[in-house]
Amino acid sequence: MDIFIEPIGRLINEFTKLPGVGKKTAQRYAYKIINMSAEEAAGFANAILEAKQKVRYCSVCGNFTEGDVCDICRTRDKSVICVVKEPKDVIALEKLHEYKGVYHVLHGVISPMEGIGPNDIRIKELLARVNEGGVKEVIMATNPDVEGEATAMYVARLLKPLGVNVTRLAHGIPIGGELEYTDEVTLSRALSERKSI
Amino acid sequence: MDIFIEPIGRLINEFTKLPGVGKKTAQRYAYKIINMSAEEAAGFANAILEAKQKVRYCSVCGNFTEGDVCDICRTRDKSVICVVKEPKDVIALEKLHEYKGVYHVLHGVISPMEGIGPNDIRIKELLARVNEGGVKEVIMATNPDVEGEATAMYVARLLKPLGVNVTRLAHGIPIGGELEYTDEVTLSRALSERKSI
Repeated sequence: MDIFIEPIGRLINEFTKLPGVGKKTAQRYAYKIINMSAEEAAGFANAILEAKQKVRYCSVCGNFTEGDVCDICRTRDKSVICVVKEPKDVIALEKLHEYKGVYHVLHGVISPMEGIGPNDIRIKELLARVNEGGVKEVIMATNPDVEGEATAMYVARLLKPLGVNVTRLAHGIPIGGELEYTDEVTLSRALSERKSI
Repeated sequence: MDIFIEPIGRLINEFTKLPGVGKKTAQRYAYKIINMSAEEAAGFANAILEAKQKVRYCSVCGNFTEGDVCDICRTRDKSVICVVKEPKDVIALEKLHEYKGVYHVLHGVISPMEGIGPNDIRIKELLARVNEGGVKEVIMATNPDVEGEATAMYVARLLKPLGVNVTRLAHGIPIGGELEYTDEVTLSRALSERKSI
């Protein structure tokens, strides 16, 4: 006989599919669900179904949206495009409430190790947007790792002949960070990109 | 305009209802759901609904079950009853694959601070089971904290006149633990309950 009765075991199993959730945590989550009221549990299940059904990708920028074109693409300054790897990077930037331009989500970065080439991510869609005209600046905001840097360089090389200003997010010592605990690559980068004050 | 579109925001909000899940973690879980296939997401939602609908309490021991009486109550040695606070304590003991008796889940412990008295937990159901006869031993396996100890003592006092052997799980230094790092209460308990070898 199994330790868990079937419906609980199945729910625990589903929870372990979430990132970073092991058996123990999944078990705690499952007990929480069982202790919820029937309405609460139904609301939870429904939120999962609705998120999956209603959320699609914006036909312009590739970010999450409910309609065809997302709110950001419909209402914001189209002369600046910020290029990111994933929809969650858009959230990170939107939290600043500073950036007024639009986005372009690549849905990945070039990674020969994983067999992801330039045609596997949304680069041609970006070129098409820039070719339509009206774009003054493209900010490459891919992550500062090997794949992110390579992708930024590759895209920049394609965009520059189109007469658009291509920029990259600044790298350096994080604010509040300490020199002593900053990794060597970051410190070397901060040194070589030093600015006059 | 909200940072998250409504279906994602709602799903994140649902995930924060799980124990120990903050905004950031909930966001990661929500993205995982959105990246699942439609079937996977439906399976997840369904597992929540089914767990909530199918899981009920065993009419004998109070543990989780799908039917009226749980598998443990139907198949195991009824002469030994292990009394625990919650269904998850049953799981902890069942994982040992050692205990052959049945359980009694109190669904709480006596806690005057929280206004929980003896009548608010399943003590009279336990007395009824013992009164039916055939019970040789009752193992009090409530947690070794103030409420758990008090509940164990209270129940023991009610059971002893019925001629049943009442025992308590042993307390002491955990196996693999070190004297140096053992808290004083545990160490004092280990000393006073020392056994001849």
